[in-house]
Amino acid sequence: MDYLEEINSLRDQVSFRKEISLPEKFTSVVIAGMGGSGIAGRIFKDIYGAKPVVIVDSYSIPKFVDSSTFFIAISYSGNTEETISALEEAKKRGAKVAAITSGGMIEDMVPDPVIIPRGLQPRSAIGFLLIPLLRGFGIVTDSDLGEARSTIEKTGRDTSYYEQVAMEIHSGKRIPVIYGTSPFGSIAYRWKTQFNENAKILSYSSYFPELNHNDTMALEKTFRKDEFYFIVLTSGQTEPILRRRIKITSELCNVSFNEINGEGNSTASIIFTLIHKGDYISYFLARYRNVDPRDVAIIEELKERLKGTI
Amino acid sequence: MDYLEEINSLRDQVSFRKEISLPEKFTSVVIAGMGGSGIAGRIFKDIYGAKPVVIVDSYSIPKFVDSSTFFIAISYSGNTEETISALEEAKKRGAKVAAITSGGMIEDMVPDPVIIPRGLQPRSAIGFLLIPLLRGFGIVTDSDLGEARSTIEKTGRDTSYYEQVAMEIHSGKRIPVIYGTSPFGSIAYRWKTQFNENAKILSYSSYFPELNHNDTMALEKTFRKDEFYFIVLTSGQTEPILRRRIKITSELCNVSFNEINGEGNSTASIIFTLIHKGDYISYFLARYRNVDPRDVAIIEELKERLKGTI
Repeated sequence: MDYLEEINSLRDQVSFRKEISLPEKFTSVVIAGMGGSGIAGRIFKDIYGAKPVVIVDSYSIPKFVDSSTFFIAISYSGNTEETISALEEAKKRGAKVAAITSGGMIEDMVPDPVIIPRGLQPRSAIGFLLIPLLRGFGIVTDSDLGEARSTIEKTGRDTSYYEQVAMEIHSGKRIPVIYGTSPFGSIAYRWKTQFNENAKILSYSSYFPELNHNDTMALEKTFRKDEFYFIVLTSGQTEPILRRRIKITSELCNVSFNEINGEGNSTASIIFTLIHKGDYISYFLARYRNVDPRDVAIIEELKERLKGTI
Repeated sequence: MDYLEEINSLRDQVSFRKEISLPEKFTSVVIAGMGGSGIAGRIFKDIYGAKPVVIVDSYSIPKFVDSSTFFIAISYSGNTEETISALEEAKKRGAKVAAITSGGMIEDMVPDPVIIPRGLQPRSAIGFLLIPLLRGFGIVTDSDLGEARSTIEKTGRDTSYYEQVAMEIHSGKRIPVIYGTSPFGSIAYRWKTQFNENAKILSYSSYFPELNHNDTMALEKTFRKDEFYFIVLTSGQTEPILRRRIKITSELCNVSFNEINGEGNSTASIIFTLIHKGDYISYFLARYRNVDPRDVAIIEELKERLKGTI
């Protein structure tokens, strides 16, 4: 499968039917995961509100984790060292543990792991990683996911606009700054990480309204203003007050935002189409730059060096 | 008081003795706050682990908030519209509410607010905003804060190095990228926001080990590599595995990190000295750029336009 096919497989991924089984009782959810796997937990945290959710993205877990905690390890490879370390600690504390993984060591560390298909880059498996959470916690319906499938398909039918955005970034060697809109800050972070891993360029993300308390002061006068490329992610769910903030910020700071819209009515459709559009832009940017969007050799070498094997 | 005096007032702020009173029982902590006020909640979340902590940085609160939630509103002015909206909703849900503020509307919205001194920029009041949390939750001792006071004083005795770093950033018109080390990602974010508000330049932050799963792939080949200025924040508490990650990342990606160290043994001393050093660098950078570090006119105008008053 070439990398564009991997990206396009998102359409089928949203029809994935496995789900996390919830424990009978739990008072909070802790999700451990790094990078392309961890993003699933971050997106879940942005939209699930029925219990406190805490994200773990390092080796240790917070003190409160105990038998009342539902602890979910997410690692596509199943071998991420930070996530394994966190999961081991959670088991010692007696937490109720679950996992979403394609295999590796984590498969054998929890009683009933959700096993997802192998063979993709972790970041291309975002559907497989996220759907079991959304289904397990009952925050999507089949009809939402049916809508997501068709909006993703529609998005993929004509990708020329995403190629054009990639060309604009490329030709000016511009640094993408991705602004999400609350509660979808995690989607903007997903875009940032795709620019990093696919296109091999630095990028950063923030979100409205938080950025109105800091970035806003820099937008007008910053160094290298013309060298940034500002993208704002919106949808039909963007609150009117946030739309006003976007408009006023653009006017006051004399800056243009390229507004990219999540398609559809359901939260699932909005999330997945926004992800998909970012995947395309970062993919086309990699092509323009003549870098291999799939290449993560440096991350792999870093992991080996940490283990002391090279 | 000139702005440098505001920054230097941190030394006295850490001796502030007021504290949040904890409710007898609560199952989670929700902290609402934006920008320079919200950062206190973010730092608290990074170091307090005894209960789940959820940060609210927009208008609404998660569904789980109820009478078992300890909800803390942090707003220096007491008039931040997002925080007021979140606090109103929390009160309707019957949450146990508290606030840290210098006055404004929020002062009258909770039974026993922690009132902190007026007259500073919110971001200069980080000691006043954070100490009541650290004291109230019992995660600092008087001896920790005594150490913090003397390490802050020591840091302020010779600021020539921070001036030099500011000059390096200024002379190359470089974009500061601040990498924290887990669990202190929030301190790196504080630096980012100080570059935004004081020096009026864009900047971003991330932290080890999470950045090893994304930024790392961009560091070697990114557009404009020589135009970034990389700072890594460490301390005597930085785990050996994270130190190895920093070293290997620098080697593999062929990038220099300017490592800046939090002084002292206690977490409080590390946090406050790291904050203080970032304050100096962003202040001196503002001076070199001939911008007023205190000026937040755009943020104020944005707030007025949102209210429809202009």
